[in-house]
Amino acid sequence: MFLHCAEMSKHQLMQNLHQFQGLFEQYMQEHQFRSVPVELYNPVNYILSLGGKRIRPLMVLAGHSLFDQEVEKSLPAAYAVELFHNFTLLHDDIMDAAPLRRGKPTVHVKYNANIGILSGDVMFALAYDYLLRLRCEQLPDVLSVFTQTAIEICEGQQMDMNFEQQENVAISDYIRMIELKTAVLLGAALKIGALSAGAPLEEAFLLHEFGRSLGIAFQLQDDVLDTYGDPSKFGKKTGGDIVQNKKTYLYLKAMELADERTGSELRGYYSGSGMAEEEKIAAVTAIFDSLGVKEAAGQVMQKYQQRALDFLAAVSVAPQKKAVLADFAESLLRREY
Amino acid sequence: MFLHCAEMSKHQLMQNLHQFQGLFEQYMQEHQFRSVPVELYNPVNYILSLGGKRIRPLMVLAGHSLFDQEVEKSLPAAYAVELFHNFTLLHDDIMDAAPLRRGKPTVHVKYNANIGILSGDVMFALAYDYLLRLRCEQLPDVLSVFTQTAIEICEGQQMDMNFEQQENVAISDYIRMIELKTAVLLGAALKIGALSAGAPLEEAFLLHEFGRSLGIAFQLQDDVLDTYGDPSKFGKKTGGDIVQNKKTYLYLKAMELADERTGSELRGYYSGSGMAEEEKIAAVTAIFDSLGVKEAAGQVMQKYQQRALDFLAAVSVAPQKKAVLADFAESLLRREY
Repeated sequence: MFLHCAEMSKHQLMQNLHQFQGLFEQYMQEHQFRSVPVELYNPVNYILSLGGKRIRPLMVLAGHSLFDQEVEKSLPAAYAVELFHNFTLLHDDIMDAAPLRRGKPTVHVKYNANIGILSGDVMFALAYDYLLRLRCEQLPDVLSVFTQTAIEICEGQQMDMNFEQQENVAISDYIRMIELKTAVLLGAALKIGALSAGAPLEEAFLLHEFGRSLGIAFQLQDDVLDTYGDPSKFGKKTGGDIVQNKKTYLYLKAMELADERTGSELRGYYSGSGMAEEEKIAAVTAIFDSLGVKEAAGQVMQKYQQRALDFLAAVSVAPQKKAVLADFAESLLRREY
Repeated sequence: MFLHCAEMSKHQLMQNLHQFQGLFEQYMQEHQFRSVPVELYNPVNYILSLGGKRIRPLMVLAGHSLFDQEVEKSLPAAYAVELFHNFTLLHDDIMDAAPLRRGKPTVHVKYNANIGILSGDVMFALAYDYLLRLRCEQLPDVLSVFTQTAIEICEGQQMDMNFEQQENVAISDYIRMIELKTAVLLGAALKIGALSAGAPLEEAFLLHEFGRSLGIAFQLQDDVLDTYGDPSKFGKKTGGDIVQNKKTYLYLKAMELADERTGSELRGYYSGSGMAEEEKIAAVTAIFDSLGVKEAAGQVMQKYQQRALDFLAAVSVAPQKKAVLADFAESLLRREY
């Protein structure tokens, strides 16, 4: 009987998420950009159409749902967060000279770099335009957390670019970088949803922290899956980070744990040995295995996951309302969502 | 006696502007960006340090002064507008591959294009950060005009890029482009200053329109001065627009007025004739002279100048308070400021 109840509830929770997703996709459809000049707005519609899991706008709606049933009221904020996120992807793709985004040509490839810069800029402005459609008392707080988050994401992206040039990167700096570049937006999305629903600042703060910790766990797991994931589930070939010499948690932890000989061997692989890709992936993965860095990453991930759940537990809302977020978090970290 | 009074008053007005400028420069000094990563913030401080006349922040303060004496309250908004303006310059310089800005290396040359993109992005976010320091009731209105202006400026920049590729550009489209790219920010600066001082929406609207019309006149004059200005007063060599085949008001009006033979001659000069620069400038200027396009531009400029003054006259504020703006406008169009 208990089991049956739990299953019902789980089904109900996924229903909620699917419902939020349906609402959001419909809102996006209804709010495509039809203004002129089309050369500016076509790339905006294009990058938004590439899909993705819409994790951040769903976080806005889920954050709202804890405090108020009319989640529709947060749709403009959800759209603002998705616009902003795609603006950062667009500019990051230019900076990384990335040819593909979700298997399709990136904006600067399909159009050109100048249009990519400018369409990104207008998406940032459009994000504020949608946020300003919230006519709640908390608007200054919403705008404040959004703006601080935008600043932090730029700082995180700059740290990431700096790390490419640096020989040594401290693990604490790496965690800080992924916090700024990835995690703060998950936290902000939840906080914005909560504030837009009229949540007290203290509760919104707890959700913010929940999202930040969850985001760090999520990114650490991304590092692990890039090397150890099942390509059929992960959705891309494994080993990409190794091929690109990316200083991920796995690499940095390996450099920390390695003896002198292994460390210089690993550094050698990462400084362009001219080795075939598959061979390089195998050699580096063997070092990672020998040092147990996958398990080390798993432990840190669990620490942040637990921290996230502790913050969620502290939110003064009935447990059944919080279940949607706990479940969302779990499915994100199981990569089932 | 009358004359003496007028002179005193004029002196007083310039005093006000100089006072605003002093206030603003001091505020900028005190609000340089000291955060990390320095690679992100150094370019922000750098582009702000290149100077310029600070026309837009002074408009914010002047707009404020019509409705309230404590112009200091609008300093964060003035800084926001200057941050935003410099963000657009930074990204425009990347798009135009411009080597110099105010005689110094542009950000993407001094640092690199990726840092230029990202520092620009953070400046846009920082502009909102400063706007949010205004804790006035009008904050939603301030943010709304600022955001709409940002969107319009992106649209204007895209139109400008489109015109480079287009054979024919209608003069009405050109006027719309300079309105979006240049004039709306002057209008927004005045409106933001007025709103921050607690002005009624109707009065703020009139100032907005004053600034928009003034901005169009200002940009038309810029076109004229680029060909006909006195280099010692204008601050740069004349003929630059002709060398770069820019479709300015002078060119578009000339194409409109020219007979078939002159039109194809002019089009020939603008499609890379391989002529020496000085020779090309002389030949194109001779056509401009023969068609009287300088005078035509002057007439349109005067129309917008008069429209600006009509809007200013309609603002319900004592004339002596409005004098600072009338004088500012006049000195801008005489390029004495």
